[in-house]
Amino acid sequence: MEKINRTILSIKPLDENAMAAAKTRQDHLTKPQGSLGQLETISFQVAGITRNPRPRITHKVIFTLAGDHGVTREGISAYPSEVTGQMVQNFLRGGAAINVLARRVGARVIVADLGVASVLEHHPDLRDKKVAMGTRNMLEGPAMSQNEALRSIEAGIELVEEELKRGVDILGTGDMGIGNTTSSSAITAVITGAQVAQVTGRGTGLGEEGWRRKVRVIEKALEINRPNPKDAIDVLSKVGGFEIGGIAGLILAGANHRIPVVIDGFISSAAALIATSLCPEVKPYLIASHQSAEPGHKTILEHLGLKPLLNLDLRLGEGTGAALGIFLVEASLKILDEMATFVEAGVSEKNS
Amino acid sequence: MEKINRTILSIKPLDENAMAAAKTRQDHLTKPQGSLGQLETISFQVAGITRNPRPRITHKVIFTLAGDHGVTREGISAYPSEVTGQMVQNFLRGGAAINVLARRVGARVIVADLGVASVLEHHPDLRDKKVAMGTRNMLEGPAMSQNEALRSIEAGIELVEEELKRGVDILGTGDMGIGNTTSSSAITAVITGAQVAQVTGRGTGLGEEGWRRKVRVIEKALEINRPNPKDAIDVLSKVGGFEIGGIAGLILAGANHRIPVVIDGFISSAAALIATSLCPEVKPYLIASHQSAEPGHKTILEHLGLKPLLNLDLRLGEGTGAALGIFLVEASLKILDEMATFVEAGVSEKNS
Repeated sequence: MEKINRTILSIKPLDENAMAAAKTRQDHLTKPQGSLGQLETISFQVAGITRNPRPRITHKVIFTLAGDHGVTREGISAYPSEVTGQMVQNFLRGGAAINVLARRVGARVIVADLGVASVLEHHPDLRDKKVAMGTRNMLEGPAMSQNEALRSIEAGIELVEEELKRGVDILGTGDMGIGNTTSSSAITAVITGAQVAQVTGRGTGLGEEGWRRKVRVIEKALEINRPNPKDAIDVLSKVGGFEIGGIAGLILAGANHRIPVVIDGFISSAAALIATSLCPEVKPYLIASHQSAEPGHKTILEHLGLKPLLNLDLRLGEGTGAALGIFLVEASLKILDEMATFVEAGVSEKNS
Repeated sequence: MEKINRTILSIKPLDENAMAAAKTRQDHLTKPQGSLGQLETISFQVAGITRNPRPRITHKVIFTLAGDHGVTREGISAYPSEVTGQMVQNFLRGGAAINVLARRVGARVIVADLGVASVLEHHPDLRDKKVAMGTRNMLEGPAMSQNEALRSIEAGIELVEEELKRGVDILGTGDMGIGNTTSSSAITAVITGAQVAQVTGRGTGLGEEGWRRKVRVIEKALEINRPNPKDAIDVLSKVGGFEIGGIAGLILAGANHRIPVVIDGFISSAAALIATSLCPEVKPYLIASHQSAEPGHKTILEHLGLKPLLNLDLRLGEGTGAALGIFLVEASLKILDEMATFVEAGVSEKNS
């Protein structure tokens, strides 16, 4: 808890001076003021985050955190639990969607085991932060203990801090965990107060009957565990996942180290609910990469007041949306940094 | 006219076999089927366009076409007309937004003078396709003659064909022309049948009074010229612009040479209205990069049945949205090409 508290207490507001300086520069570049829309506002945000009126990004890192969910025993996913560990191997071999997109974007992918339910072979690129062999079934009590919940968040903080020496100018969040849309829907319902059915989707591809079962399972889990909406650690421990706690840790650490945090889809946004609930000051550090096809995602983004950059009906996770978002953030910073001003280019300004 | 007719007659439907093969491959990649949303459907479309079930993109080209508009004398733009030529110089020196984004995406930018109202100095990277020194004022009769309209479309076709030897695997459209949102709103109102006020925006930054004047100017121009909505050449000649005709030519040539055409914002989409009106078969070759902040753009995209990839409130033109769109198309093709299949990765498939 000490590491988490120390991190939370160190998070500061954005730097208004750097933001104003970035805005002044944008307004002198050879384009009508505001004509690049969100590509402009993101550049102000990143200036404020990094305290740099003309920020540049070299080291891009996507963290893909994996964990298993005891609730999969209730038949709430279209895929078997063992896929979590198999996909970790796929990440390490470079064959997954996140690898392809990260390569295109020039980001490195950090794969971490936060709580996969099988023993994973040692691999030089796999970070071992296993809290336990998967969560417990939330229909039979809390998914994890308070201590495990805290440990998962700390692990996320550690992952970022261990990467700082290699450089982290922007970070993207990502997840892998069969069953984790169930956990994310539960977290979303508790923290936003929405109805379970409204924030529950088909995950990796449930049919109608499977979807109804998933809703019932979540409703029952909330009845049994009664998570306290005002206590994010209680929510995480009762219906969360280790990878979700880990992502909340990534977010806290990113804000603490003044690194822009590009949030992936539904799972990462559920983790953002946990992180902002623990520390509302992280909110201005967040950039929502995309609007997922999962219905609960819209609820979270509205709750957090975030406008997603993309709306491509993605519902994969892994950090795939975050990778595309990182590209757009980088594009916005290159606009700010590389464009000519009206004076430099000898272009006439607006009629007054 | 002969070149245009020859081009139109050569345009064929997409290759259904290549599309089906791409879909089969996508369904075997290590992700839930359909979980990458539009990144999957675009890969099928490009497979059909290129007749290749696993298309790769090396040569990316953005065409930025410039032209001036006689109607600027009516005070319908926030910037003076001379900015068109000044911005062409800015493009050639690499200081504009399109240069920055094209560099990030790895695309080359082809700048062409379709009808700038000043004499531009010779430059090795400037394509001279000047039809005239700007269009005439559409409040005093047709903006151009029938022959000039045809010539502008032919010039766009030529621009693509001249680039083929250097390689064009994907093309983005772009525009520069003070006054060209006025022309585009007029085209949109005529071809879609929408009210002028509904499809007219603030362009580069008009105030309320300027916007009302712009609407009145367009309404009057349509009254005076009575363009025939069924005759795209008539519409282009009466209220169009040379760069808009040129972009219509780019689109026709792209479809003819089976090159995916990534449409930029409002101006490029008005050109797409002209192109699809001349030849409805080009429609499946089009990819809408973004939803512009200009209100008429939504009307066009709905009319054409296109779903934009991005919605970032861009309203700059130049091909900036197309550059971002090209990145997303490339990402979708890399997913199709580089991801591991379930069998290759040893990952379990969906529970049946």
